[in-house]
Amino acid sequence: MRMVDVIAKKRNGLKLSETEIKYFVEQYMTGDIPDYQASALMMAIYFQGMDQEETATLTKSMVDSGDTIDLSKINGHKVDKHSTGGVGDKTTFIVGPLVAAAGIPVAKMSGRGLGHTGGTIDKLESIPGFKVELTKEQFIENVNNHKLSVVGQTGNLAPADKKLYALRDVTATVNAIPLIASSIMSKKIASGADSIVLDVKTGSGAFMKTLADSRKLAQEMVTIGNQLDRRTVAVISDMNQPLGYEIGNANEVKEAVRVLQGEPVEDLRELALELAAHMTILAGVYPDYDKAMEQLERLIDEGHALQAFKDFIKAQNGDISVIENLEKLPTSFYHIDVKTTLNGYVHEMNAETIGVAAMHLGAGRATKEDKINHGVGITLHKKIGDMVKENDILATLHADTQNVDNVIELIQQSYQIGEKQVKKNKMIYDVIK
Amino acid sequence: MRMVDVIAKKRNGLKLSETEIKYFVEQYMTGDIPDYQASALMMAIYFQGMDQEETATLTKSMVDSGDTIDLSKINGHKVDKHSTGGVGDKTTFIVGPLVAAAGIPVAKMSGRGLGHTGGTIDKLESIPGFKVELTKEQFIENVNNHKLSVVGQTGNLAPADKKLYALRDVTATVNAIPLIASSIMSKKIASGADSIVLDVKTGSGAFMKTLADSRKLAQEMVTIGNQLDRRTVAVISDMNQPLGYEIGNANEVKEAVRVLQGEPVEDLRELALELAAHMTILAGVYPDYDKAMEQLERLIDEGHALQAFKDFIKAQNGDISVIENLEKLPTSFYHIDVKTTLNGYVHEMNAETIGVAAMHLGAGRATKEDKINHGVGITLHKKIGDMVKENDILATLHADTQNVDNVIELIQQSYQIGEKQVKKNKMIYDVIK
Repeated sequence: MRMVDVIAKKRNGLKLSETEIKYFVEQYMTGDIPDYQASALMMAIYFQGMDQEETATLTKSMVDSGDTIDLSKINGHKVDKHSTGGVGDKTTFIVGPLVAAAGIPVAKMSGRGLGHTGGTIDKLESIPGFKVELTKEQFIENVNNHKLSVVGQTGNLAPADKKLYALRDVTATVNAIPLIASSIMSKKIASGADSIVLDVKTGSGAFMKTLADSRKLAQEMVTIGNQLDRRTVAVISDMNQPLGYEIGNANEVKEAVRVLQGEPVEDLRELALELAAHMTILAGVYPDYDKAMEQLERLIDEGHALQAFKDFIKAQNGDISVIENLEKLPTSFYHIDVKTTLNGYVHEMNAETIGVAAMHLGAGRATKEDKINHGVGITLHKKIGDMVKENDILATLHADTQNVDNVIELIQQSYQIGEKQVKKNKMIYDVIK
Repeated sequence: MRMVDVIAKKRNGLKLSETEIKYFVEQYMTGDIPDYQASALMMAIYFQGMDQEETATLTKSMVDSGDTIDLSKINGHKVDKHSTGGVGDKTTFIVGPLVAAAGIPVAKMSGRGLGHTGGTIDKLESIPGFKVELTKEQFIENVNNHKLSVVGQTGNLAPADKKLYALRDVTATVNAIPLIASSIMSKKIASGADSIVLDVKTGSGAFMKTLADSRKLAQEMVTIGNQLDRRTVAVISDMNQPLGYEIGNANEVKEAVRVLQGEPVEDLRELALELAAHMTILAGVYPDYDKAMEQLERLIDEGHALQAFKDFIKAQNGDISVIENLEKLPTSFYHIDVKTTLNGYVHEMNAETIGVAAMHLGAGRATKEDKINHGVGITLHKKIGDMVKENDILATLHADTQNVDNVIELIQQSYQIGEKQVKKNKMIYDVIK
């Protein structure tokens, strides 16, 4: 087999065989296929696509390129949750303990990565004493005992995806749905869960800006999961504005805890319940959606989910007194209000711009070497559909400097205020099974 | 400027600026842009194309990447001829002396390359004593004295094309018309002629199999030439069967000499006259096509073209007695007839297969290291439209071995014989100015 023929075949719009895709991934990893042939193939795929079978085969080959996490020593049906990423997304801290309280084991490996705020792991490190590195045995023991553990990613998961993604990033071949889908799913499948619930974000703050593209990506990922024997459900959720009201690290943990305490943070609670419902149904804990919702609401309202969160934190050496007294979590030195000069209603928000503003404050990393500042962030006071009057506070910046004029400007730019009353955003657009 | 943005721009179907194209070629040559970004751009161009301005800019940048031959010391308007390549193409040996006889200086640099037979230079080396390496001064003096000189290519012409072509060859991005056009034209423009006549072959033995593609390629090249101040004309000629009746090295020289001697080798003489006519019109020697044809026919019929050929050969140390006695040119040890078992008419020929057959006999090179055998080759006795009867000779193989069963089979395969009478092939399909 010659790689040039494989490239030409895809370039001509033909379907690649399992043998051809495996050959590509394997030889690319050994270095026998050079980057310049791989990038030409990626660009051909950008234009010609891949069908479900090809995409599943590519995913499988990338899984096979590295380690697979063995979760067989964990009792019960393991369900993982993955979000395609957005601003203010702290659902893991609600969904994790909530489904744990329902009896489902959640063994989550999470990355740090680059972004507007830290990753799940960084956010958890806001909690004094919390350990993100456990031995494999401790990790499994914690899940068996408390149904929930979150650790930093270890092992060499899907290295072919890592190598290919780095190449796609510099060759303008990231934005191809079959490639995005196989990249996400290869890591999820290597992580060892039995079932997967995907939170596919759509809108201004999401990777996929349109509902049509989000639906395509969701469909591709569900198909891959099902073809590779992982029951997979995708929830398409709104990311036209940040999720909840808090953006940052410690303040996102705070907001999640408030939801676990029963506070009705509207969109955040709604999304967390939706994701948890599908996880419990996949695990066979509840028979249907209505029953799941009823039980999950009860688990929050009766404090079981909050207790599960405390157990999990304590098991990883975290100081749970901060959960009982959220004021003890890290905070910033300055709190600066951003006001509006307009009267009317919030019509639109640019979630991505708000994310960039949070990063400017120090909440996220632009490069791997950057350090996260756990105390800084943004609290929103107005969201889409809210009425605003002149001098109302749109948002509060939590900063360690007073030199934040550029951040204030970004926040003001990100709000579109108009005269007409508009409806609040829908949270859930679709569920794809 | 970032290369990834240049790739994304082309991927999105936008036009690249002069600055972007120059940046790419320059940085690719310094190695600052790696092969994997270049191949992704090539694949994006494969799908999104380039407009005339982009293609001309790419060509110019590739010319600027290396040396340019300075022909300014040659008196008169220099016209070059280039063929996109086919089987049995010996027109240079007729066209060169013919336009030289008309007073046009022809300063030709030619390669050896890989192929079914040798290149122009290899074929000329069939003539005992012929020197293909001259100093620059001798080359120019020969052209000034005899209006014709053909030497091996020297200098570092369009190295960016060389580097890019090697990359395209292994990334399935050769077959993109703007890339083919700029590749050919960059070398032609660097070679220093004032005007260019292109012989764009079309059909089974050509790089472009369809007339539509050949026309597109011809149009692109003419546009590039004109945009870069070289008057350019393209003749689209038939390559559904080999040109003339001889394929090889010495036997192609023989056939060309016979045409110069006035022998009416139908398609070969027709094409040579057509190409020569456009060259003389571009050079301003003749006012129009009819006058050019009339004069060029006379230059052959009165022996002036043959004399120009002898002068050229002699000036490069060749033994011109072989031209007066063609039997003295190299020949092979065996001459093996390939017969037909059918009655009917030749409907089609696969020119490419016949070329491969010639290569198997030793007439061409499959790899750079292969040696050309000047005496071997194929003489065709039947071409499209000819009537054949059982036991008629289709072709004679000139071989240095009797072990030629596979070659006989290739020849037989390449003839499609049917019952119905068919017309002879058209030679000239179109002329694009």
